[in-house]
Amino acid sequence: MIRKLLIANRGEIACRIIRTCRKMGISTVAVYSDADKDALHVQLADEAVRIGPPPVAQSYLQIDVIIDAAKSTGADALHPGYGLQSENPELARRSEEAGIRFVGPSSVAIAQMGSKVAARQMMKQAGVPLVPGSDGAVAGDEQALAEAERIGYPVMLKASAGGGGIGMQVVENADALKKAFASNQTRAKAYFGNGEMFIEKQIMRPRHIEVQVLFDEHGNGVYLWERECSVQRRHQKVVEEAPSPFLDSTLRRQMGETALLAARSIGYANAGTVEFIVDEDRNFYFLEMNTRLQVEHPVTEFITGLDIVEWQLRIADGDRLAFTQEDIQLRGHAIECRVYAEDPVRMLPSPGTITELVLPEGEGIRNDVGVTNSTVVTPFYDPMVGKLIAYGADRHEAISRMADALLQYRVEGIKTNLPLLAKIIAADAFRSGDTTTDFISQHISWKE
Amino acid sequence: MIRKLLIANRGEIACRIIRTCRKMGISTVAVYSDADKDALHVQLADEAVRIGPPPVAQSYLQIDVIIDAAKSTGADALHPGYGLQSENPELARRSEEAGIRFVGPSSVAIAQMGSKVAARQMMKQAGVPLVPGSDGAVAGDEQALAEAERIGYPVMLKASAGGGGIGMQVVENADALKKAFASNQTRAKAYFGNGEMFIEKQIMRPRHIEVQVLFDEHGNGVYLWERECSVQRRHQKVVEEAPSPFLDSTLRRQMGETALLAARSIGYANAGTVEFIVDEDRNFYFLEMNTRLQVEHPVTEFITGLDIVEWQLRIADGDRLAFTQEDIQLRGHAIECRVYAEDPVRMLPSPGTITELVLPEGEGIRNDVGVTNSTVVTPFYDPMVGKLIAYGADRHEAISRMADALLQYRVEGIKTNLPLLAKIIAADAFRSGDTTTDFISQHISWKE
Repeated sequence: MIRKLLIANRGEIACRIIRTCRKMGISTVAVYSDADKDALHVQLADEAVRIGPPPVAQSYLQIDVIIDAAKSTGADALHPGYGLQSENPELARRSEEAGIRFVGPSSVAIAQMGSKVAARQMMKQAGVPLVPGSDGAVAGDEQALAEAERIGYPVMLKASAGGGGIGMQVVENADALKKAFASNQTRAKAYFGNGEMFIEKQIMRPRHIEVQVLFDEHGNGVYLWERECSVQRRHQKVVEEAPSPFLDSTLRRQMGETALLAARSIGYANAGTVEFIVDEDRNFYFLEMNTRLQVEHPVTEFITGLDIVEWQLRIADGDRLAFTQEDIQLRGHAIECRVYAEDPVRMLPSPGTITELVLPEGEGIRNDVGVTNSTVVTPFYDPMVGKLIAYGADRHEAISRMADALLQYRVEGIKTNLPLLAKIIAADAFRSGDTTTDFISQHISWKE
Repeated sequence: MIRKLLIANRGEIACRIIRTCRKMGISTVAVYSDADKDALHVQLADEAVRIGPPPVAQSYLQIDVIIDAAKSTGADALHPGYGLQSENPELARRSEEAGIRFVGPSSVAIAQMGSKVAARQMMKQAGVPLVPGSDGAVAGDEQALAEAERIGYPVMLKASAGGGGIGMQVVENADALKKAFASNQTRAKAYFGNGEMFIEKQIMRPRHIEVQVLFDEHGNGVYLWERECSVQRRHQKVVEEAPSPFLDSTLRRQMGETALLAARSIGYANAGTVEFIVDEDRNFYFLEMNTRLQVEHPVTEFITGLDIVEWQLRIADGDRLAFTQEDIQLRGHAIECRVYAEDPVRMLPSPGTITELVLPEGEGIRNDVGVTNSTVVTPFYDPMVGKLIAYGADRHEAISRMADALLQYRVEGIKTNLPLLAKIIAADAFRSGDTTTDFISQHISWKE
C-alpha cells in the first residue's frame, strides 16, 4: 500500500493530486523551488522539500534532487503530474531503481512512446492506423507519383530534413506534384543540404480527438471514452470537451478499441492517452500516446464519475481494475477552459501578482486551481492560472454553464485569456460542434 | 414562455436561481433592502429594485411592494425562493391575480399544506400514514389506556394546549400512563387553563427523511428519491445527504410512491418535498409537505443530474415532465453542509464583515454562496454564508471529499460553524450512517 506520495510537480496539478491522496489517506510530500515557497501546493501538502532556485532546469527538472527528496522523506511512491519530467523515462527508471513506485507506466513504455519513430513502427505492427504516407523517403518523382496515387490526393509533400514549412507543400493532383517535387527538393537541398522527400496524406478539416485508457498491471484495460481537443492556439489546447460532438457511438467504440489495442501492444499499465487525428470523413489515425495524466482529464472524470488520479494510484499499488468496459458510464457532457495568465491579444504570458481571485461557483462547476488571491505568477512556469470545467446533462447545458461561469470568473492584477475563452464558447461554430484544429484562426477575431 | 423573472428572495438562493435563468436565457430582476444594496444577488441580476429598509417586515415580506416591483419591471413570473414569503399563500395568490406566473404550486395547495390540521386530515383521507395517535383529545384515562393499547407502548402523552414540554411525558406501560395522565392533566390545567390530553406513538430513534417530488400541471409526477436530514441542531438542519444511508431500495420506493400519493391527492403542481419521520423499525409517517424549493435541493441535483430550478420554471411555463419515474437516475452520493455565520460554541449568530473568503474547490465540490470576500453579514437575515456540497461515486468518497473541503474552507472576519461541521463529518456515528435526530447531542461534544 502506498502510504506517502511525493508529487514531482507544482501548480494546479500538484494540488489536484494532493486532494485525491487526502481522500485515500495517503500522506503527501510537495517539492518546491524558491519561487514557489508560498505556493498553494506547498501549503496543502503534509510535507514540503525545497529543491532549488526557480528556473526549472535547476529545480523541477533535477531528477537526482527529486529522488533524494523522496528518499529523505520516506515516500514510497512518486507522481510525476504532467509536463516537466512526467514523460522522461529517466525519472521513472530512477524512481523504480530507488524502490519508489512510479505512478505511471514503466520507463520502457514511456521511452517507446516518447520516440515518434519507434512509436509509429510499433503501432504499425500492431495494426493501429497511421496517417497514410510513403513510409520513408521516396526515390524520386516517379515513386512520389505512385505513392500519391495509392494514398489519394490531396497529399502533403515534405522534406525529411524540413522545418519551418520549408520544403513542404500540399498538392492536389499529379501535375502539381511533379512541379512541386522538383522545386521543393531544390529548396530543401539549398536550406538543409538534404533533398530527401516523403509524402503524407493531407488530412482535411482535421480534429484532434484523444482516448483515455486505464490499464492495470494484470493486463486488464478499459477506455474512458474520448476527449475532443481541437480548439488549439499555437498547438496549445485551449478548450477541451467530452464526449466529442463529432463522433457517433460506432466510431466512439472503434476508436476506443483501437486505443486499447495501441496500449496493449506495448504492455502498457496505468493511465494513458492515445491521440488521434480524425478527418472530415471520420477516418482516424494514430498521432501519439501520452504516457501520463492529461491536463484535460477532469472532463472525463465528469462523464464517467471516476477519479482518474485514484486509479493511477491504485494501479501503481498493484490493484486490479474494479470494472470492465460495460461498467464505464458516459453521462452528460463536460467542457474545460484553460485560464492562462496572458495578454489575450498579443498572446504573451502576463506575469504579476494576483490581487483578487473570485472563481465561479454553482451547479456543474469545477475549478482546478493552483493559485490563491495573493499568488505571484512568475515568468518561470507555465502561465496556467487554473482550469474551469462545466458539466451539464447535455452539451447545451454544459455550454450555457460555461458561458455564465466565464462571466463570473474574476482575476485581477494580471491579464488573462478569459476574453478569448468567452469568445470561443460564444462562437456559433463552437455551439454547433464545428471544431477543427484551425477553429481559432477561422472563427475568432481579435480586431477590436 | 417566461422571459423575465423576479426573484422575491436574497442570498445564496437568489444567486442560484439567477444562474439557472442565465442558462435558460431568462432575464432576472432582483429585489433588495438597503442593507443588501451591494449584495451578490443584486450584482448578478440583470435589474434590481429597492424594496425598503433592512428589517424583513419592511422589505422582503412586503408583498405589495414585491408585486409592484414585478409589474414595474415587466416581469412575467416570480420565484419565491425558500423561507421569507415562499410558503405564504398570499404571495402566490397576489402574483396569480396580477397575471404574473408564480413559480411554485397554487395558492390553494400552499394553504392546504400550510395548515397542519388540514394537511393531516387530507393525508389521512388519502391513505398516507400518519404518526399513530388518539386523533384528538381522549375523554379520560380509560380511553387513554385503550388508545395506548391499540397504538402500542411507548406512547407520548401530550396536552392539547401544551408548549415548552409542559404536560408532555413519554410512558412505557399502562401503570405509568395512569399515573402520568392525572399529573400532566393537572399541570396542563394549571398552566394553560385547559386539561385536554391526547396520545401519540413515541417514535424511537427517529430520522427525518424527505422525498423530493416534481409534478407538472398535467398530472404527471415523479419522485427524485429522498434526502436524509436528521442531523439537526435546535430543529435546524445542518447536514443533509442523498440518498439516505438508512433506506433499502424497497423502502425507498415505498416512500417515493407515498410522497407521490400525498402530492397527487391535493392536485399538487411544481416542485415539493414530503417530509417523513422514520422510526428504528423503518416505519415511516407523514410530517408535513414543503411547498417550495428546499435549501438542501443540491444533493438531489447531484444524484439525479437534474436542475430542479429549471424544472420549476418549465413547469410554471406549462411544460410537461420530459421523463417518467424509470428515467430518474440515482447515481453516487452527495452531502451538504450549511455554513453559518455563528459562534459554534454559544450557537449565536456572528454578524460582521467577511474580510477573506476562500472556498474549497475541486472534483465533486459545489459551492452555493451569496456572499463575496467583502460582504457585510448583517444581523437582519438568516446567517447562512453558503452551502458546501460534496459528491462522490459512493458515500465514502463523498464523506472524504467533504472532510477535506471543510479543512480548505476559509472565512475570516466572522465566526462560523465550520468546526462543528468538521466534527460531525468526522464522527464515527456519522460515518456509519447512524444519524438520528438527536445525533448532535449524542455524538458531538463541545467540551474543548
